[in-house]
Amino acid sequence: MPTNQSLRAFFDELASDAPAPGGGGAAAAAGAMGAALVSMVCNLTVGKEKFAAVEDQVGEILNKSEKLRIKLNNMMQEDVEAFNAVMAAYRLPKATPDEKAIRSAAIQNAAKIAALAPLTTAQACAEVIELTQPAAEMGNPNVLSDAGVAALCAQAGLKGAALNVLINLGMIKDESFVTKYQADLDQILAKYDALANEVYQSVKGKL
Amino acid sequence: MPTNQSLRAFFDELASDAPAPGGGGAAAAAGAMGAALVSMVCNLTVGKEKFAAVEDQVGEILNKSEKLRIKLNNMMQEDVEAFNAVMAAYRLPKATPDEKAIRSAAIQNAAKIAALAPLTTAQACAEVIELTQPAAEMGNPNVLSDAGVAALCAQAGLKGAALNVLINLGMIKDESFVTKYQADLDQILAKYDALANEVYQSVKGKL
Repeated sequence: MPTNQSLRAFFDELASDAPAPGGGGAAAAAGAMGAALVSMVCNLTVGKEKFAAVEDQVGEILNKSEKLRIKLNNMMQEDVEAFNAVMAAYRLPKATPDEKAIRSAAIQNAAKIAALAPLTTAQACAEVIELTQPAAEMGNPNVLSDAGVAALCAQAGLKGAALNVLINLGMIKDESFVTKYQADLDQILAKYDALANEVYQSVKGKL
Repeated sequence: MPTNQSLRAFFDELASDAPAPGGGGAAAAAGAMGAALVSMVCNLTVGKEKFAAVEDQVGEILNKSEKLRIKLNNMMQEDVEAFNAVMAAYRLPKATPDEKAIRSAAIQNAAKIAALAPLTTAQACAEVIELTQPAAEMGNPNVLSDAGVAALCAQAGLKGAALNVLINLGMIKDESFVTKYQADLDQILAKYDALANEVYQSVKGKL
């Protein structure tokens, strides 16, 4: 099974002593897996006479889940790049006061980008969670459990990305930046963690 | 990035209208991702003078996480095979009473195997969650957030696999089989879902 082989290569890379890809990339991958499962539910619903009444709505969910899947797939790469930029800033020379100031500013800039990358991942995972509820309600009931697994994967992505936002915010000295994005994160996290739990419990109750 | 490309192929397959791989495979993949992140934390801890005091214990965690990673990777394939066996049983002829009896027995057999496959996945994910706690406590604090993401991925794998156990138990007429494995599942689910939440909250509190 070639797909299994290629996934194994990703897991090997994740497991290695290279610090990237790490949790940030894994969070984006979990979110992408959730989006893919929403798409699967939709693809097994649209075009079937039995579900003609919800055809348009499910088609719209599919359209959104496919866009989120591409976005989260790209976030895996962006997370690695943001991490590498932070590491590169730390490696800048720091022999003179001027060099120190330049290096410090570069670290702060890179840390901001590294905090915003997982925040984008968290937001995209929240949007996936939002899609799992109508997918579970309107989708083909034969794949109801897949809609539940979609919510769980996107939830792991949301909370995993949140941990990565927090670790990066911890490096940032600009207090107004930290306060603003911490508040954004708290809001997304509270709302969509609860919604994912709701979708999971509802699906579980119907099996 | 070749790994990203190959992951994209897995997500494409998941998103398609092929019913397998589906949520069962995604749950095993989430668990494998959790195991890989535990290994990453250990690999960035062992061999460093600073962590010499916990070298042996972390080495043991790594040994276990790598075994679980291989097991969960294999479960992705076994889940597809178990699903295909159920579908094949449903396609058996049912023209005569004899054929009907043979087909019905074959479906029951295949459903039992299909229920036990995600139960194995759930158990392996529970073992990964168990490793995330000492990994977060003893591992290199620079990768503390990765131990947290490991717990979240394994939690999604545990609960996602549970949904797949439940959907398959629903097909099984042997009541003692259903009662036994439902009880096993409930026990694992209650204990390790709570432990994963604990690890996540503890990691989040330290960031």
